[in-house]
Amino acid sequence: MLAVRLEQHGRIPVVAEVPEPVLQSDDVIVAVEGAGVCRTDLHAIHGELADVFPTPMPFTLGHEVAGIVVQKGSAARGVDLGTKVVLHPLMTCGLCRACRRGEDQHCAEGQFVGLAVDGGMAQFVRTNARALVPLASTTDTREVAPLADAGITAYHALRREVPQLSAESVAVILCCGGLGHLGIQMLRAMSDCIIVAVDPKEAARDLAKSVGADHVAGDDVAEVVAEASRGAGAAAVFDFVGEGDAPALSVSLLGAKGLYSAVGYGGISSIPTMELVLKELRVQGNMVGTYQDLAELIALYERGLLQSHVVSYPLAEAHRAFDDLEKGLVRGRAVLVP
Amino acid sequence: MLAVRLEQHGRIPVVAEVPEPVLQSDDVIVAVEGAGVCRTDLHAIHGELADVFPTPMPFTLGHEVAGIVVQKGSAARGVDLGTKVVLHPLMTCGLCRACRRGEDQHCAEGQFVGLAVDGGMAQFVRTNARALVPLASTTDTREVAPLADAGITAYHALRREVPQLSAESVAVILCCGGLGHLGIQMLRAMSDCIIVAVDPKEAARDLAKSVGADHVAGDDVAEVVAEASRGAGAAAVFDFVGEGDAPALSVSLLGAKGLYSAVGYGGISSIPTMELVLKELRVQGNMVGTYQDLAELIALYERGLLQSHVVSYPLAEAHRAFDDLEKGLVRGRAVLVP
Amino acid sequence: MLAVRLEQHGRIPVVAEVPEPVLQSDDVIVAVEGAGVCRTDLHAIHGELADVFPTPMPFTLGHEVAGIVVQKGSAARGVDLGTKVVLHPLMTCGLCRACRRGEDQHCAEGQFVGLAVDGGMAQFVRTNARALVPLASTTDTREVAPLADAGITAYHALRREVPQLSAESVAVILCCGGLGHLGIQMLRAMSDCIIVAVDPKEAARDLAKSVGADHVAGDDVAEVVAEASRGAGAAAVFDFVGEGDAPALSVSLLGAKGLYSAVGYGGISSIPTMELVLKELRVQGNMVGTYQDLAELIALYERGLLQSHVVSYPLAEAHRAFDDLEKGLVRGRAVLVP
Amino acid sequence: MLAVRLEQHGRIPVVAEVPEPVLQSDDVIVAVEGAGVCRTDLHAIHGELADVFPTPMPFTLGHEVAGIVVQKGSAARGVDLGTKVVLHPLMTCGLCRACRRGEDQHCAEGQFVGLAVDGGMAQFVRTNARALVPLASTTDTREVAPLADAGITAYHALRREVPQLSAESVAVILCCGGLGHLGIQMLRAMSDCIIVAVDPKEAARDLAKSVGADHVAGDDVAEVVAEASRGAGAAAVFDFVGEGDAPALSVSLLGAKGLYSAVGYGGISSIPTMELVLKELRVQGNMVGTYQDLAELIALYERGLLQSHVVSYPLAEAHRAFDDLEKGLVRGRAVLVP
Repeated sequence: MLAVRLEQHGRIPVVAEVPEPVLQSDDVIVAVEGAGVCRTDLHAIHGELADVFPTPMPFTLGHEVAGIVVQKGSAARGVDLGTKVVLHPLMTCGLCRACRRGEDQHCAEGQFVGLAVDGGMAQFVRTNARALVPLASTTDTREVAPLADAGITAYHALRREVPQLSAESVAVILCCGGLGHLGIQMLRAMSDCIIVAVDPKEAARDLAKSVGADHVAGDDVAEVVAEASRGAGAAAVFDFVGEGDAPALSVSLLGAKGLYSAVGYGGISSIPTMELVLKELRVQGNMVGTYQDLAELIALYERGLLQSHVVSYPLAEAHRAFDDLEKGLVRGRAVLVP
Repeated sequence: MLAVRLEQHGRIPVVAEVPEPVLQSDDVIVAVEGAGVCRTDLHAIHGELADVFPTPMPFTLGHEVAGIVVQKGSAARGVDLGTKVVLHPLMTCGLCRACRRGEDQHCAEGQFVGLAVDGGMAQFVRTNARALVPLASTTDTREVAPLADAGITAYHALRREVPQLSAESVAVILCCGGLGHLGIQMLRAMSDCIIVAVDPKEAARDLAKSVGADHVAGDDVAEVVAEASRGAGAAAVFDFVGEGDAPALSVSLLGAKGLYSAVGYGGISSIPTMELVLKELRVQGNMVGTYQDLAELIALYERGLLQSHVVSYPLAEAHRAFDDLEKGLVRGRAVLVP
Repeated sequence: MLAVRLEQHGRIPVVAEVPEPVLQSDDVIVAVEGAGVCRTDLHAIHGELADVFPTPMPFTLGHEVAGIVVQKGSAARGVDLGTKVVLHPLMTCGLCRACRRGEDQHCAEGQFVGLAVDGGMAQFVRTNARALVPLASTTDTREVAPLADAGITAYHALRREVPQLSAESVAVILCCGGLGHLGIQMLRAMSDCIIVAVDPKEAARDLAKSVGADHVAGDDVAEVVAEASRGAGAAAVFDFVGEGDAPALSVSLLGAKGLYSAVGYGGISSIPTMELVLKELRVQGNMVGTYQDLAELIALYERGLLQSHVVSYPLAEAHRAFDDLEKGLVRGRAVLVP
Repeated sequence: MLAVRLEQHGRIPVVAEVPEPVLQSDDVIVAVEGAGVCRTDLHAIHGELADVFPTPMPFTLGHEVAGIVVQKGSAARGVDLGTKVVLHPLMTCGLCRACRRGEDQHCAEGQFVGLAVDGGMAQFVRTNARALVPLASTTDTREVAPLADAGITAYHALRREVPQLSAESVAVILCCGGLGHLGIQMLRAMSDCIIVAVDPKEAARDLAKSVGADHVAGDDVAEVVAEASRGAGAAAVFDFVGEGDAPALSVSLLGAKGLYSAVGYGGISSIPTMELVLKELRVQGNMVGTYQDLAELIALYERGLLQSHVVSYPLAEAHRAFDDLEKGLVRGRAVLVP
């Protein structure tokens, strides 16, 4: 079958012919219908994740996957062949303490599909029964694929903070790209807070406005937040960038008891302890999410509360998708279609 | 001035000429522009609150009040004459432990305006500075008045449960009258849960649908909840009735870990401990709300997320408003206008 | 092997020779070293659980079990033969939504060992890998067995409320028997609240005092709670009885925002909605607990913070244990030893 | 009267004769019996707080104060002359939104006694009625004084995390000095978690052990935490230092979902966003605490669950106390006695 293979750090992945995945006891094989292209793929390509995922190359990328279950192992309970599914990106054990608490993303034996083992930028992908979230038969798998990582991560971060937000709170979403445009809609559906969406690009700000942001801002974000919050400062900043100036900018916007929620990564969060203390600031890291998060997010999507803007690329033109993402040319989210 | 006076339990209140309220040290006098008529007024008229509020009669009813601050005492800090305000229904001390925790409704020395002391169905009402929530200059005081008790109570009950609700959860709102139609909109703004609104009257169900309910139901509520929840049962039932069959019906709709939230009152909540235990059910009583609740609710309203359907009655025709409410003829909420 | 069999409702179970359990794919066989005798066994014997567990008779009782793993199926991951374990009382699927959230006690396919399938009042018991909580090699299995149901249920109920309790809060524990004496110690270890233990028997009150209760009470409980709380009322009552007068007595002790936590069952919790509303009372049912609860409880025990008072009975004399429990003659907890 | 006056940054404060404080409307005058000496006093002396509190010099230091109410203004409600009290360190307005939520430490008009206005290292101090927490007549005011800031800050930080800690969790307390020895006892009373106390000095470690730490550590803290947590890492680190290597050391000890709780301050908390994300770390700043926190802490102390080790110095020898604190010679907490 065809697959997008990372052969060497720093080199664009290639589309190559590889053997189809082989089934094991409680595994399933999914025929891929859509595989999202994510900033994390760029981090992987650039070698920035080499310490976290020291995966022998070449391997197949793709951790945002939706498709149809076409094979299942003898020990794969609760799965029907032919079911349309989206994949939680980790294969989890179900027995470690994190799994027993429902914290799939911290599974002691979790294998990140598309980063630690072969992923879904291919015609078929292997995962296990625990990773499958069933979809309605009418759901578009290409639109849903990006929810498996971009979507779930934003949802996980936003959902966690919903209890703290009210109609008086200003929540800032930093960057209205692939994650951002999804995050704005989720937050709009889950909270009556005042949403301020920040992006240097006007087109991104327009998209943000059209999907539910109350205010948009560019360089004037400090003023916009001050006005929207009547001087109180932001209750929460969701940083979907995590690099460059983003962490420092985020913290500068916070009012008393404010939250800096790190979703994007790459940079440094650096805060004087005196500032932490005086404002009683909070910082929260977010990684992927739980199975329950993904199931809730799919329910939200299937109820029509979330539009996923995707741009499809044939699997064979994966290099073009990586390139567009790198250059910031993707409006919404890129999805590879085998 | 004119005021609506309860003279005797079981008798319709009369509109009478009474002296204007007299200012004390940290008090304020508010010129009333709207005073909501509430089911609690009927409970008071019928003498059902005589134990809770053994108030010497006659006294002036009216605990849902909005208007303009026209006088203030020497010790009334943070208040400007001419400010448009809605009144938290309790005059609170600010020093007892409940007040220090922000739980105004449990103030050890709280005085319920319109039930324990003279209220706002009058041209002027006396309260204290702590009760005032400022309004935008463009806000319609008649629409806002019912938020002071009906609104805040629904908000308090719903807001508390928001952290537990997701796009997969079914939340039932029992009765789509004065509280119900407000509650549906609040929940819609604050949560992506599936809202099932229940009312025996078709007109009420139509109103419910138009303000955000996902499903409406009458006698068929058990089926509607079962289908909407895919057999899991309701995650929460907000009982705005609290009398007759409502508590038992509510509990029968709940799934595992479900919440019965009592807002209306008058009847008995009776649950076998075995049912409590097997499903790990929860019950929560709700009374009014905090000052913070009211401020958040006003923010929600002023951002345009809540339409308050009111029917105005001249103060002099208060008897007609009580009569219509008793007979279930008020669509939305009745407000007396001096 | 020998096993304690329930043959007919209303009749004392008999000790009979039965075949040893047979292993299936992900199952394990545990050689029983101790099986607790619980009030729930009496409910089962009396037929009060016939609707909940319509188990064909005869079957083997015993849902509080500790012992040694002696066989494991081919699909039983993460288990070593020879490990000393205590059994979570349910065999859970690990795939349903409740399991995915870590709420084992609500597993859609959960099988309650000793109530729905053959239990541990026998020489051997069959369960699955997910039910096993490993013990330190020095831990006494007889002392630990009652933690599997009595202990976990008390822990689950108490742990959930710990965030609400402070050094000013009065928490009442109703009945200082098998559950009660464990509950007092757990609460003492987890909270600085003021513990009032209630029991009609002086010996039970003495035990309560010796294991950490700040105050004990019998008929004078209303006065004791009023004094200990400086008139505020109880913050929480944990009702380990759940029958007769206990639910009503519990609710009568509560102050504003107080919790009635139902652990024992059999009676009716009946509360006027006006009382629910005025005090904003809470009710919470509790059933068993999660795997995580049991693991935390074992950690608490193994750190020496919990003494489990047990009285051992040979398996062959099970009838005597049931009889003593029924008559209230067991001080602490009865355990059958094969 | 005599008072300890800060006359110039960088110079040791002097004991000088100053006029007694003058009463205003809702103020009270307290005859000081004990005033704690705090690391924050050193920060103030060194000018590190000049931006936060640009207080005109000279002014009287002292923000940890206990004594007897000797005068009260006409508008000071709920206060009896002769009452023994400890002072919440802020004079708060009771009307701003933070006060209305019970978050006294964020009062929009809060005045920090001893930092922004004249404090309690004097014979008399002026504060307002809202600051007073009444004490039992038998309580030793010198022992209680340090609870007003050191105590409340530790309590606030620890109490907030109690819901997340269980018998399996390792909580690290960094530095067993004035705050640390109090914090260990509080955490011991409120939680069954595993407490690891860290201090470079053996005497401090011995004190830690004697007041409830399960383990103590110096340079070997990484190993001690790894062993106590069975490799999982710390669930929380409470950093009572906040300077130098402490923030980085703290973060390095954390396991998945771990909390870095900043109490001490002065340094920088610097965390790569990738580490934040991969472990889903949390950071929380803490400043003082609420009135409710102080009331709960006093209840904890008056129930005998907290020993406050104090070393008394005559007010006139304040310089010696500052000197000893600077040199790390105070075992427990220094208190000035007028």
